[in-house]
Amino acid sequence: MLTSKTVQQFLDETTSSSPAPGGGSVSALTAALGSALTSMVCRLTIGKKKYAEVQKEMEETLIKSEELRLRCTALIDEDTQAFNDVISAFALPKESEVQKTRRNEAIQGATKTATRVPLKLMRTCSEALESAARAALQGNLNSVSDAGVAALMIQSACEGAFYNVRINLNSIEDKSFSSQTLAQAEEIRKSVAIHARDIISVVESKL
Amino acid sequence: MLTSKTVQQFLDETTSSSPAPGGGSVSALTAALGSALTSMVCRLTIGKKKYAEVQKEMEETLIKSEELRLRCTALIDEDTQAFNDVISAFALPKESEVQKTRRNEAIQGATKTATRVPLKLMRTCSEALESAARAALQGNLNSVSDAGVAALMIQSACEGAFYNVRINLNSIEDKSFSSQTLAQAEEIRKSVAIHARDIISVVESKL
Repeated sequence: MLTSKTVQQFLDETTSSSPAPGGGSVSALTAALGSALTSMVCRLTIGKKKYAEVQKEMEETLIKSEELRLRCTALIDEDTQAFNDVISAFALPKESEVQKTRRNEAIQGATKTATRVPLKLMRTCSEALESAARAALQGNLNSVSDAGVAALMIQSACEGAFYNVRINLNSIEDKSFSSQTLAQAEEIRKSVAIHARDIISVVESKL
Repeated sequence: MLTSKTVQQFLDETTSSSPAPGGGSVSALTAALGSALTSMVCRLTIGKKKYAEVQKEMEETLIKSEELRLRCTALIDEDTQAFNDVISAFALPKESEVQKTRRNEAIQGATKTATRVPLKLMRTCSEALESAARAALQGNLNSVSDAGVAALMIQSACEGAFYNVRINLNSIEDKSFSSQTLAQAEEIRKSVAIHARDIISVVESKL
């Protein structure tokens, strides 16, 4: 598992000429880092007298952001696995007509999964941004820069995942799948960008 | 060192109620991840016949992006160290007038360092974005989404570092230091945002 590697090893493996982990796994890790910061801000708010009024909201947000952090973390490996499955499908034999058909079906199936994984990350980022927003609006003012970094990281992870959806859709023959997936991805991308802009302007007013 | 921890441990430590590693170290790690993706795109371009014309540029970009990746990686620990030094300064005794003066000087000194570290990260991001731009413009088209994610990550790391400069400047008494630092940070932030927008539109046209 990529998350069992040290940070240095993860960076070294990203750098290597093997295409995985690539932009998809890096986006998932960045989203997990953003959610981890949201959790930190909640923890630095809970139990502080000055923030007694938002105690309950911060406790709920912490539970949610921890769940989201785990989901984003799982997607680090899922994305690399999906990519490796595409590579394995390309390596299938292609001598007979039957083999060619099977290989093509395997490639198409694996590539669909390789678009579903970043789409799932985009959805997770959309939820993670809600938690970051709460942390930015109600969390400890001393940590507002951390809540801001959380929002930035989650938004760029969502955008990075969008690029991965897009590039994989180029190889998909099922046009109905492509247009539906693209429409969903574009909708999430748009709403996340708008929401992130709002959170960031709140953060900047508090810095 | 934070980079000797596993990715999972790094995430767990960020999540904890200890304020470090926080948004500053997360920004440095995100910038390092961006530079690692730039290097990967260079490696996936070098040696490919189709990209023979840009071989030399890609080799130069790889050397540069690897240097930048190391500099960003070093800043992960530097930022946490700078934050911990501020905390240590606050813990100094403050009973006598002499102690109060010394403590305040130590706090001011440590806080200045805690603004210099993210400012250094912003400068490094500005250089790292140049390398990501080359990878996006000239690199292997199959990896253009990775070059795009590199640019996204580097820009949000720069923005995250800017928040850290800003929040630390609030505690600085030396107004001349504050205004100079803020002016430098705002200039880098602006140029990085403009440059990132350009790169991203190139990436989108190629996706």
